[in-house]
Amino acid sequence: MKTVNIDLGDRSYQIRIADGLMHQSSELLPWVSGRQVVIITNEIVAPLYLQQVKESLQGKQIFEIILPDGEHIKTLQTAESIFDRLLGIPCDRKATLIALGGGVIGDMVGFAAACYQRGVAFIQIPTTLLAQVDSSVGGKTAVNHPRGKNMIGAFYQPVRVIADTRSLLTLDDRQFASGVAEVIKYGLINDIEFFEWLEKNIDRVMNKERDALGYIIECSCLNKARIVEQDERESGVRALLNLGHTFGHAIEAGFGYGKWLHGEAVAMGMVIAAQMSYQLGWLSETALLRTKSLIKKATLPTEPFAGLTKANMLDLMKLDKKVEDGNLKLILLEDIGKAVISSEYDHSVLHSTVDFFVID
Amino acid sequence: MKTVNIDLGDRSYQIRIADGLMHQSSELLPWVSGRQVVIITNEIVAPLYLQQVKESLQGKQIFEIILPDGEHIKTLQTAESIFDRLLGIPCDRKATLIALGGGVIGDMVGFAAACYQRGVAFIQIPTTLLAQVDSSVGGKTAVNHPRGKNMIGAFYQPVRVIADTRSLLTLDDRQFASGVAEVIKYGLINDIEFFEWLEKNIDRVMNKERDALGYIIECSCLNKARIVEQDERESGVRALLNLGHTFGHAIEAGFGYGKWLHGEAVAMGMVIAAQMSYQLGWLSETALLRTKSLIKKATLPTEPFAGLTKANMLDLMKLDKKVEDGNLKLILLEDIGKAVISSEYDHSVLHSTVDFFVID
Repeated sequence: MKTVNIDLGDRSYQIRIADGLMHQSSELLPWVSGRQVVIITNEIVAPLYLQQVKESLQGKQIFEIILPDGEHIKTLQTAESIFDRLLGIPCDRKATLIALGGGVIGDMVGFAAACYQRGVAFIQIPTTLLAQVDSSVGGKTAVNHPRGKNMIGAFYQPVRVIADTRSLLTLDDRQFASGVAEVIKYGLINDIEFFEWLEKNIDRVMNKERDALGYIIECSCLNKARIVEQDERESGVRALLNLGHTFGHAIEAGFGYGKWLHGEAVAMGMVIAAQMSYQLGWLSETALLRTKSLIKKATLPTEPFAGLTKANMLDLMKLDKKVEDGNLKLILLEDIGKAVISSEYDHSVLHSTVDFFVID
Repeated sequence: MKTVNIDLGDRSYQIRIADGLMHQSSELLPWVSGRQVVIITNEIVAPLYLQQVKESLQGKQIFEIILPDGEHIKTLQTAESIFDRLLGIPCDRKATLIALGGGVIGDMVGFAAACYQRGVAFIQIPTTLLAQVDSSVGGKTAVNHPRGKNMIGAFYQPVRVIADTRSLLTLDDRQFASGVAEVIKYGLINDIEFFEWLEKNIDRVMNKERDALGYIIECSCLNKARIVEQDERESGVRALLNLGHTFGHAIEAGFGYGKWLHGEAVAMGMVIAAQMSYQLGWLSETALLRTKSLIKKATLPTEPFAGLTKANMLDLMKLDKKVEDGNLKLILLEDIGKAVISSEYDHSVLHSTVDFFVID
């Protein structure tokens, strides 16, 4: 059993990482303070894990909400349908919500928990690698808007996160690789040792070897925790975590949410950020090539793609939450393990880099 | 000029109280950190004050959203229409929202500010007495749901509150009295001196004498601040502020939002709470009569009313956010200036009291 402590004052909580955790009542029950608990999951995850989570909650009044699968449900309308159901029960302010699923479920349920009666407790049981290494730390919850991803949301911390590595064994390869993109991201941002470990062990990771899974989840959560603890509400250093995301969000939105998986778009975004950093003269060619190579070994996209215009892509990037007073801040690389936040870059290089990756 | 400091760590802010504040750029501009500012108001308030607020914001990019008047707009749908507009501009995360209007505008804009891009700054310019003495302290923001008032919301603090007493002069008598209900509430909860001052000066208040207005707003905000500072997220003592509100919310919801003004329903709720406290043997007859008499002098309802059944009323009360694990906590009185939170009351007295006030 591995434990990562997220230290945020009175909003602190623990992430527990191990194989088979969902079966353990002692990992769940103490964190359900009232008598009502509502498990919110989706059609794909429910047949796999809903029953065992319910068994681990015996003695509580258990309700369930099963949503369709997919990014398209991450809307204010779905939030409303959750509120309708919670008020129909009716759930009081002591009720606990459980998010059982991937990042979409985590973001959606976290936002619903943040807003229901101005905030009820929620537990995250992330069942994808992406959710275990990313959405389980930091309390970012949100829904999408037609004009942009995660535009409506809240910073709201769970009371507990249960990362059961066994759930990764049922994950399809594309979903799994999408999670590996975020794992690589932590190495690129601030942890060259972890990046080098990944270079050596990427095959073991892609084969889902149990100890490799435990290690990458722990390292990723620790890396993210160190940054989030310094800057919970993203007024500064936390923006580093968005490496690859400004480009990635534009790709996801441009193709329509769901066509590219989030991690795929982030992987592509990291390659674009590395290429741009290289063209600015900030990143060495070796570092660029190592970055692309590791991402490629994780079966993630690294090559120019068709389907968006340069103008599309740049327009969509302007909607990014890192635009401040008209300036787009980008997360760029000075080295592997050294990301920087900057709005002081040559805009022609941004244009030429995007132009290179987007095949009109 | 009076200033009330709301001390909530990194979420601290000041309430400024004086006549003509809206005209003063120096009271607004320093609190707008980005270049974009969006004033959100309604059809009634806009013709009265929008122009002067815009003049006080010269040099900024000013946008305006004018909503219809009334409690019926306090919905998730209106929040969505605000998000649509903000993203259409598009507003970035440095944008500041200004809530110019009464409690409905304050709650609505506060909630939109809490959720837009996971939180942007907002300034409150409350133009009703109710909003100046109540929603300006404590950061409760919310929208209504058909099943209950303020069921969807967030605790989210403004960066500044500007209470311009001049705006109360254009308020109609019913709206003004509705605010006085919340003022009386602070005396009842925890401040017998203030209650006694109100008994002596209620005519000056109802005549809107300027120094009386400044005094009741300051006293009310100080009283509320003292409680909120102890318990920002209402896990304990803050519930005292809901004196009269559990009954009041049931009345508002039962009749349909907007039929009774919020303060009218709270006034009636305080009378019901006082009567119930008297019948429980907790409150003296003298204190009950003084309470009813002051509320009546403020031209607020104190008598039994037709239009709801006892069953309606009790059902609606069960949806209150103070229900925890099936127990309804009520705010009751042991004396003037001494409110208590209790779920240890004789339920037959609750039933008989509601029965007395509801004329079937």
